[in-house]
Amino acid sequence: MVDRAENSQMQRTFVPPIYNVTICGGTHGNELTGVYIVREMQKQKMEKAGSVSVTTVETNPRAVAAGRRYTEMDLNRCFTDVLLSSPITESTPYEVKRAQELNAQLGPKGSAKAVDLLIDLHNTTSNMGLCFIFYSIDWITLHIYKYIENNLNSVPVRAIQLDIPSSEAYSLESVGKHGFAIEVGPQPSGVLRADIFNVVKEALDLTLQWLQKFSSGHSFEGGTVDAYTFVKSVDYPRDSAGKATAIIHQDLQDNDFKLLRSGDPIFQTFSGDILKYEGEDLYPFFVNECAYYEKKIAFHLAQKKTYSFPHISVKND
Amino acid sequence: MVDRAENSQMQRTFVPPIYNVTICGGTHGNELTGVYIVREMQKQKMEKAGSVSVTTVETNPRAVAAGRRYTEMDLNRCFTDVLLSSPITESTPYEVKRAQELNAQLGPKGSAKAVDLLIDLHNTTSNMGLCFIFYSIDWITLHIYKYIENNLNSVPVRAIQLDIPSSEAYSLESVGKHGFAIEVGPQPSGVLRADIFNVVKEALDLTLQWLQKFSSGHSFEGGTVDAYTFVKSVDYPRDSAGKATAIIHQDLQDNDFKLLRSGDPIFQTFSGDILKYEGEDLYPFFVNECAYYEKKIAFHLAQKKTYSFPHISVKND
Repeated sequence: MVDRAENSQMQRTFVPPIYNVTICGGTHGNELTGVYIVREMQKQKMEKAGSVSVTTVETNPRAVAAGRRYTEMDLNRCFTDVLLSSPITESTPYEVKRAQELNAQLGPKGSAKAVDLLIDLHNTTSNMGLCFIFYSIDWITLHIYKYIENNLNSVPVRAIQLDIPSSEAYSLESVGKHGFAIEVGPQPSGVLRADIFNVVKEALDLTLQWLQKFSSGHSFEGGTVDAYTFVKSVDYPRDSAGKATAIIHQDLQDNDFKLLRSGDPIFQTFSGDILKYEGEDLYPFFVNECAYYEKKIAFHLAQKKTYSFPHISVKND
Repeated sequence: MVDRAENSQMQRTFVPPIYNVTICGGTHGNELTGVYIVREMQKQKMEKAGSVSVTTVETNPRAVAAGRRYTEMDLNRCFTDVLLSSPITESTPYEVKRAQELNAQLGPKGSAKAVDLLIDLHNTTSNMGLCFIFYSIDWITLHIYKYIENNLNSVPVRAIQLDIPSSEAYSLESVGKHGFAIEVGPQPSGVLRADIFNVVKEALDLTLQWLQKFSSGHSFEGGTVDAYTFVKSVDYPRDSAGKATAIIHQDLQDNDFKLLRSGDPIFQTFSGDILKYEGEDLYPFFVNECAYYEKKIAFHLAQKKTYSFPHISVKND
């Protein structure tokens, strides 16, 4: 890894231009920061950042109107190849139809017609600060991430990598040639906090600044990014009827990304007993995320890995 | 006021016994602390605290199952005399019917048959710590409040008084002969936090402890309680179409009960302007409560008042 990082920092890599970026909000209808950021950008008629064209989409307007994460199915699990190509019938959930519409508008996923960069804005009830979430180790994404990490100081900034092939990548950002989700919390579902709104706005301003610099010929030095790579999910303990018997222990609550070691408390049963973690040292994230109760996920666990990325410049036509 | 307080501390007042207490949760289906406290008490078959009989009720099971505040109408606005006596038709909302059922079971409101003490458990997304909310200045409520204020140290404890006559009192606790809501936050809707769960459990344990002492003949000294008395609500600024144009300013966010003075920032518009408070010095509470967006309430404002209460003992039959 070190050899490759050093090597990549010396050699400059030329990468294709980013002509357009699409910023999406409201993929989950009760994660309000993205909804209101997108609406404000539409009101301000923001269409260009330098030579890069900027579009915005409110992706699940029905769920936004209902004030809920989704109406029939989680939209952000609908962008797999299987669901994007499934035939539409009367019983097809609204969100599957909407995913296919979005794929036609912003993709098709994996094609030359897809938008160059797709950014999807999310919130979490977990204390995760600002996270970039992405599938592939992609130079553009890692460079933008590094630029934000270096320039945004109001909250912790972290990278989360989901090691899933593109065909099975289930979330909206996988539709773009490059793409990532910006996940910011803690913010309750259905609530809009000014601090979170301002952080996301700052992250987007920095992203557009980076894109302007990149498209105007600025070259960016290589380096490394520490990313949390998803390992597994942990469910709540349950009784024989399948009902949860415990809640996240208060020592784990709000401690996303703090290394969890064998013996650390993770759950408190409703009757007051403490349950401890057993297993290899890993980093918890999405701790006590509201929307994951129904998915039977109390928290995710990750390994920390270092990825190197090269010095890059735009490849002119 | 001072004369009355001193006087009340010297004279002992004898008040009727509390034979029974009902603890309610799930009046708002996505405020989970009460739901799980009540379920755990039912599982433990807790039926007595000394000589005081204890019952528990999950008050809006349909809303709990749906994971929403309510299904058709806010249940905790249905306990006015008008709604409790309105004829049931096919178009009557579920929650009005449920309020009438609960009134038959736990009331009738204002009657000798009503439960002696009704405690309703709530959560808020606002940073309010633990609050007692009540209508009338009632010796039992003030004594229990004082006992909790003196013995619970993990979060700030405050009293909120709503100066509304009983006939118009709209919330469940008004059905009991004595009654108060315990409102604890911040906790996102649909999320269960261990710290909040433990605080509410501690407050209930202290309440039951007080009731045991009182019913066994212990007398309690008089004193004073500082309570925040509701003055008015403040809406978000809106455009000509009625849409909110701003969010709570980050200096006001999480600063419930911090005196608001003319000139203090209260809103940030989506385009970044700051709007300031104008008016008399008052105390904000329910700042950025999720459920109040639809009620057009950004925050409430209160005056702080001091109420005295007498030295009391139980009046034996």
